[in-house]
Amino acid sequence: MTDFTPTARTRIKRLPKRARYDRDTVHAILDAGFVCHIGYSIDGQPYVTPTAYWREGDAVYWHGSSKSRMLLALEKRPPLCLTVTHFDGLVVARSGFHMSVNYRSAMLFGTPYKVEEPGEKLAKMERFIERVYPGHWPELRPVSKRELKAMSVFGLHIEEAVAKVRTGGPIDENEDYALPIWAGVVPVRQVLGAPVDDGRLAPGAPGAPRITL
Amino acid sequence: MTDFTPTARTRIKRLPKRARYDRDTVHAILDAGFVCHIGYSIDGQPYVTPTAYWREGDAVYWHGSSKSRMLLALEKRPPLCLTVTHFDGLVVARSGFHMSVNYRSAMLFGTPYKVEEPGEKLAKMERFIERVYPGHWPELRPVSKRELKAMSVFGLHIEEAVAKVRTGGPIDENEDYALPIWAGVVPVRQVLGAPVDDGRLAPGAPGAPRITL
Repeated sequence: MTDFTPTARTRIKRLPKRARYDRDTVHAILDAGFVCHIGYSIDGQPYVTPTAYWREGDAVYWHGSSKSRMLLALEKRPPLCLTVTHFDGLVVARSGFHMSVNYRSAMLFGTPYKVEEPGEKLAKMERFIERVYPGHWPELRPVSKRELKAMSVFGLHIEEAVAKVRTGGPIDENEDYALPIWAGVVPVRQVLGAPVDDGRLAPGAPGAPRITL
Repeated sequence: MTDFTPTARTRIKRLPKRARYDRDTVHAILDAGFVCHIGYSIDGQPYVTPTAYWREGDAVYWHGSSKSRMLLALEKRPPLCLTVTHFDGLVVARSGFHMSVNYRSAMLFGTPYKVEEPGEKLAKMERFIERVYPGHWPELRPVSKRELKAMSVFGLHIEEAVAKVRTGGPIDENEDYALPIWAGVVPVRQVLGAPVDDGRLAPGAPGAPRITL
């Protein structure tokens, strides 16, 4: 796939080895995540709001209550930064200076837009549910018109994007390798626990849906 | 402990039941985290940068290369928003509309400041290492003056803060409880894997340090 073009907003100057501009990398980081952090300003004050999101092609979407402060602010279509971060491990070095972290992050820039058409909103919502619970949408009680109205869906076409990735062990000073100090990586990962039903299942209810997270 | 006073920036209007302004809750969410997302603007463009942080009293700190674009931008002391989010579980409802997420988040506002005095910088760095690797600082090769210079440490005194917390199962429509659809919570958590050394340990090197994350 083609690359995103580095711009003033996305070109990584420090540690450029960690930067990736190719769509495959950016998309893979987005697809591995569920919660992003959206940055926008109101009267010069930045806000960073966590929210669930999903990707479709070169766009990401999120939704929430029509009355959410963030979503009301985004109706004015301010410039936006959307960041997804995976914390993959602690990198333990032989000196405090070289301690580091393994991670994958994607930073997207663009202008948000509101998905207005009800049929499209419903389709987006289906996509969001199916992304996490594949095959589960048809099993659910259908969304009502009132519910659909109470919800806003926003999208961001990715105008510019950059990924940053660090993997591997510590990079210590040459002379420090002789020191009797432990160094290496402690992996960190996100895991799902066993599903716990809410104690109010109706007779005949099946088991928990399959989850792809 | 006393509460943070809700302000125009921090007062939660929607789902106010989820808002917490007490220091204990805000501090506990900060102390349970390691990576935050810092929001700031350059010429009206918001940026959201993930970074490791730690808390000391009513302040949080983070550090990085003196040449980092974020840290250079913060030297101008722009208004800042720092958000920490813990994704605790998927809340599976009987309808798409009531699907939700359990989480704990803290959103802090304030003006960043640079820690300039070398002794204070070093003390901050020790605190950061000891927060993750308790007892490990004295085992490490000491930080050199050159390294200390190459690093910037920034702090944010928490002027305003709000936490948002959702726990528990789905809240479905009364009539939906009769439907044979699974509903409940799927817990999500972050776990550490077994430490992997870098294959270059010197003779006599001890085991991996203890980690509190």
